[in-house]
Amino acid sequence: MHDDYERHLERLRRAQEACATRNAWVPFEESPARAHHPDGAKDAGFERFSARLGERFALTGVVADHWVGEEVSPYTGEALGVTYPRRTSDDLFAAAERAWPAWRDADPRRRVGVCMEILDRLATHVFENAFATMHTTGQAFMMAFAGSGANSLDRGLEALAFADLAMDAVPSHATYERTFGRGAPVTLRKRYRLMGVGPALVITCGSYPAWNAYPAIFANLATGNPVIVKPHPHAVLPVAIAVEVGRELLLERGFDPDLLSLAVDSSNDLIARELLADPRCKIVDFTGSQTFGRLIERECADKLVYTETSGCNAVILESADDLEDVVDAIALGIAIFSSQMCTAPQNIFIPRSGVATPAGVVAYEDVVSRLVDAVDRLVAEPSSAAAVCGAIHNPKTLDSLTELTAVSEMTVARASSEYEHPEFPAARTATPLLIEVAAESAIYRDEHFGPAAFLIAADDRTHALERATDDAQRQGSIANYVYSTDEAYLDLVEETFACAGASVGINLRRQRPINFTAAFSDYHVTGLNPAGNACLTDISFVASRFRIVQSKREVGL
Amino acid sequence: MHDDYERHLERLRRAQEACATRNAWVPFEESPARAHHPDGAKDAGFERFSARLGERFALTGVVADHWVGEEVSPYTGEALGVTYPRRTSDDLFAAAERAWPAWRDADPRRRVGVCMEILDRLATHVFENAFATMHTTGQAFMMAFAGSGANSLDRGLEALAFADLAMDAVPSHATYERTFGRGAPVTLRKRYRLMGVGPALVITCGSYPAWNAYPAIFANLATGNPVIVKPHPHAVLPVAIAVEVGRELLLERGFDPDLLSLAVDSSNDLIARELLADPRCKIVDFTGSQTFGRLIERECADKLVYTETSGCNAVILESADDLEDVVDAIALGIAIFSSQMCTAPQNIFIPRSGVATPAGVVAYEDVVSRLVDAVDRLVAEPSSAAAVCGAIHNPKTLDSLTELTAVSEMTVARASSEYEHPEFPAARTATPLLIEVAAESAIYRDEHFGPAAFLIAADDRTHALERATDDAQRQGSIANYVYSTDEAYLDLVEETFACAGASVGINLRRQRPINFTAAFSDYHVTGLNPAGNACLTDISFVASRFRIVQSKREVGL
Repeated sequence: MHDDYERHLERLRRAQEACATRNAWVPFEESPARAHHPDGAKDAGFERFSARLGERFALTGVVADHWVGEEVSPYTGEALGVTYPRRTSDDLFAAAERAWPAWRDADPRRRVGVCMEILDRLATHVFENAFATMHTTGQAFMMAFAGSGANSLDRGLEALAFADLAMDAVPSHATYERTFGRGAPVTLRKRYRLMGVGPALVITCGSYPAWNAYPAIFANLATGNPVIVKPHPHAVLPVAIAVEVGRELLLERGFDPDLLSLAVDSSNDLIARELLADPRCKIVDFTGSQTFGRLIERECADKLVYTETSGCNAVILESADDLEDVVDAIALGIAIFSSQMCTAPQNIFIPRSGVATPAGVVAYEDVVSRLVDAVDRLVAEPSSAAAVCGAIHNPKTLDSLTELTAVSEMTVARASSEYEHPEFPAARTATPLLIEVAAESAIYRDEHFGPAAFLIAADDRTHALERATDDAQRQGSIANYVYSTDEAYLDLVEETFACAGASVGINLRRQRPINFTAAFSDYHVTGLNPAGNACLTDISFVASRFRIVQSKREVGL
Repeated sequence: MHDDYERHLERLRRAQEACATRNAWVPFEESPARAHHPDGAKDAGFERFSARLGERFALTGVVADHWVGEEVSPYTGEALGVTYPRRTSDDLFAAAERAWPAWRDADPRRRVGVCMEILDRLATHVFENAFATMHTTGQAFMMAFAGSGANSLDRGLEALAFADLAMDAVPSHATYERTFGRGAPVTLRKRYRLMGVGPALVITCGSYPAWNAYPAIFANLATGNPVIVKPHPHAVLPVAIAVEVGRELLLERGFDPDLLSLAVDSSNDLIARELLADPRCKIVDFTGSQTFGRLIERECADKLVYTETSGCNAVILESADDLEDVVDAIALGIAIFSSQMCTAPQNIFIPRSGVATPAGVVAYEDVVSRLVDAVDRLVAEPSSAAAVCGAIHNPKTLDSLTELTAVSEMTVARASSEYEHPEFPAARTATPLLIEVAAESAIYRDEHFGPAAFLIAADDRTHALERATDDAQRQGSIANYVYSTDEAYLDLVEETFACAGASVGINLRRQRPINFTAAFSDYHVTGLNPAGNACLTDISFVASRFRIVQSKREVGL
C-alpha cells in the first residue's frame, strides 16, 4: 500500500532516533569527492546546469503567458537567462486548492513515503543544484554542494521525521467502551482524520535558499498541505530544480504536481505581498530579512507563521588555551561565504584589558591585530579566498560596506577589498571588513548583512556578556560564540544566553566553520528573540500544520 | 529529586497510554455517590462553600486595596457576597515575571510532578467546587460535580500527559562527535534547555469555567510559564478555589504562588483588554464568545493564542432503527444544562419527506411533535427538569429567548417556560424553546446561546448535510450529530464533515448525554473552523508553549 514508506522506513526510523538522541548523523553525502558519486556525476551536473541557461524553465502542467527571470551570476556577472512561468497569485492558490483533496485524504504514511522518495531524487541532482546555487547565491562550489545538497536534504529529512512522529501519535481509529450512569454499556467506534490546514507559502532567501526551504516544504507536504514556493527573484534556479524534481515524482505517484508549485516574480513586480494577502494561504514559512519577517508575523494573524530571519550574532573572546587557534576559528567564521549566513558572527567583544592565555594576557590591540592577520591569511591566496569567501550575492552589500567604512565614529581595522577570483575574473568579491567600534555605539546593534564584523572593546567580560545578550533580546540573534577557559564564567554564559533566548557555542575551534549547524543535533533558531519565531526543527514546527477531525459512531445496538 | 513526579509516574504513563490508544479511561471519580468518597465529604464540601459566602477570598501573598465580586446564584437569586482582590494588570504581570525564573529553570519533571500533585489536591475539593460551580454557572449539582470535578481534572491530566511527552522528547544533553573534512575529530557536548515562553493569560467562560481552564493552566505551568487566570466576573468562585489550591501547593514546594494568580474584574470595570494589551503577556487561552475569540486571534499576533469559542452545532435526523430512542437522545442533548454548553446541538435538520424507520416513514410533522413530546417528558417533573436543565446562567439568555419567539418568520413548536425548581423557588429557569424555521432562513446560522433549538425542514438528506457543513465552515461548529441507518450516507457524512473541519457523532443514543466529550478519547475543537483555533488536547496544544535554547561546548582539546 505504502511502498515508498516501507522502502524508506529504516532511514526514517534512524532519523527519528537521531532527532531523539541528537548525536552526529549525516545521512546524505556531504562531499563532492569522486569516490562518493557515480562516474562523471559532477560533469553531468554541470551539463544539466549549463543546459538550463538561456532557456525557459518549463514545468509539466504549468501553462504561462508570461515568463520572467533576472538572475545574474555573482561569479560571471552575466545573466543566467533562465526564465520561469509567471503565475498569478490567484492561479497558484486555485491550483493548490484543486490539487489538495487527493493529497490531504491520502494516508499520512503515503505522503511521508512520497516525500522520502523526493528527497532521494533530489540527492541525484546535487551537482546540478550546486552549480545553480553557486551561480545565483555566490556560494563557493564546496559550500553550495553541501549547503544545497546534504545539509538541506538532512534538514528536509529531519522535518519529515518529526512530521511522521507527530502524525503517527494519533491513532486512526479507537474503540471506546463505557457505561454512563445506570445506562447500558456504550460502544463507540471513533475515527480520527488528520487534515492539512491548507495551502502553504514558502518564501526563500537569496543567499541560502534550500536550507530552510526543505524543512518547510517537507513539513507541509507530509502533513497534507499543498506548497507554493516563492524564491527570491535573484536565487530561483536551485529552488526551481527542487520543485521540478518534486513535481515529477508527485505526478509519477498519481498526484497533481501543483501540490508543489513555483511562484516566480521580478524585482519590479513582486508577488509576495499579494500571496500573503490571499485568504486561501493558510501557512507561511519565511526566511529573509527581520523587517519583512516581523511584518508577516504581525499581519498574518489568520495564518500559521514560521519565520527565520536574522539578528546580531556575537562572539565573546575572554580567555583561551590556544589563542592562535581560536583567532583562526573566529576569522574563518567571519570570512566563510562572506558572512552571508544567518549564523555568521558579527559583533566580536574583547575585554579592554585583553585576553588571558597560558602565556599571559594578550592586550586588546594585539588580539585585534591577530584577528586581522588571521583574516589576511585566509584571503591571501586567491584560491583560498575563493574557496572560503565565495562571491557577494547582492550588489547592495558592497554599497553597504562602503557606507559603513565612511561612518566617522569607527576605526577600520581591516579594509575590505576585492580579491581576484582564480576562475571567474568578473566575480563580485569582497574580503571581510573589520571595524573597531565603541561599546556604547549603536551601529553594531543592527544586523549588517555581508562581510563586516565589529570589534568591540568591552569594559570586562561581564560587560561583554551583558551587551551581547541584551542585543540578542532586543535585536535578535541566531548563533553566538564564546571563548573562555573559566568554567564558572562559561556556566554564567550558558545561563545568561539561555535567559536571552539565544543559543551559544563555546570554545568551538575544530568544528570548522564554527557556524556549522547540524541537522538532527542542533536546534536552529529558538523562537524566543526577534530573529524568528520558529525552531527548525522541533515538534512545534510540525504539530500545528495538521489538525484532527474526529467522528464517532455508536455501534452494537 | 522529583518526588512528585516519581509518585505520580504510573498515572502519568497510564494517561499517555490513554492519549495514544484513546479508549475509555476515567481516572478521577465522576460520581458524587457516597460510596466513592470519604464519609461526610459532600456535607463538608457544602460547608466549605457556605463559609466562603459573604467573605473576602484572601489569597496568601496577595495584598489588595480593592475587593470586587458580583456573583449571584442563578438558583437563589442572591448575591454570593464573595469578594476577591482586584489586582491591576501591571501588578499581575510584574508578579508573574518575578515568580517565573525559578519555575522556568526547574527541571520539567519537577514541574510536571508539582502539577500532578495539584490535580490530586483539586480532587479533594470537588464537592466544594461543585457547589461553587452550581451557584455561579447554574449547572445542576450532578453536572457541576462531574464537570468541575472529574471531567475537568481528566482534561488537566490529559494536557499534562502531552506536555510531558513533548518535553521528554528533547534530551537535556547530547554528545556530538564527528570529523569535518580533513580536520581532527570534534567532540561537542550539547545542552538543550527548555524555556517557557512567558506569562500566560487564561480567560475562562461563565457557564463552564473549569473544563477548558484546567488544560490551559496545566499545559502552561508544566511547560514553565506563569499563569494569570481571568474568570468571567459572574463565575469566579470555582476558578478562585482552584487557584487557591494550586497556589498553596506551589508555596509548599518552595515556589512563588504568583505562578498561578487570579485576575478578577467586574462588569463595569473589565480588565481583559488591558491584560491582553500587555506586551509581557506571551500566551492567551480563551474560552468564550466567538466575537471576542476572533478579536483576540486577530489582535494578539505577538502572542501564542488558543481559542475555543462557539458555533452552530447541527443534528441531521435522516433515518433510525428506533426513532423513539433517537428522539429521546436528541431531546436530552437540547435540554441538558439548558443548551449552555459549546457542544449543545442547535440546528435540527429533518428531511421534509420524513424520517425512515423500520415501521415506515415518519412524517416531518410527526418527528417534530415527537421531539416536542420528548422534551416535554424530560421537563414534566420539576425534579427531572431541575436535574437536566439546571438554571440559566445569564439573565440576558432569557431576553434572547423572548426576542427569538417574537421573530415573525418562525413557528414556535414548543414554547419555553419557567419550571419550578423543587429546591430553589427563585431559580432562573427556562425549558427548551423549539422553533420551526425555513431552511433558507438566516436566523439559525448564528449561534443562539441557551435553550433554543431550530427545527429545519430540509429538501432531503443531502440538502441537510450541505446546510449543516456549510454552517460549520462559515459560522463554526464544535460538535454535530447525525442519525441514519444508511452506511453509504454515513460515509458521506463523515467525509463531508471532515472536509468542513467539523467533528461528528453518529447514532449516539446510549451515550447520555450525546454531547459528552471524553478526555483521552475525544479531540475537542478541530481548529479548522471559526469555533476556535485550538484542539484540546493534542500535541499542538502544548508544543509551542516552550522553546529550546541550546549551548554546545567543544571538549577534549
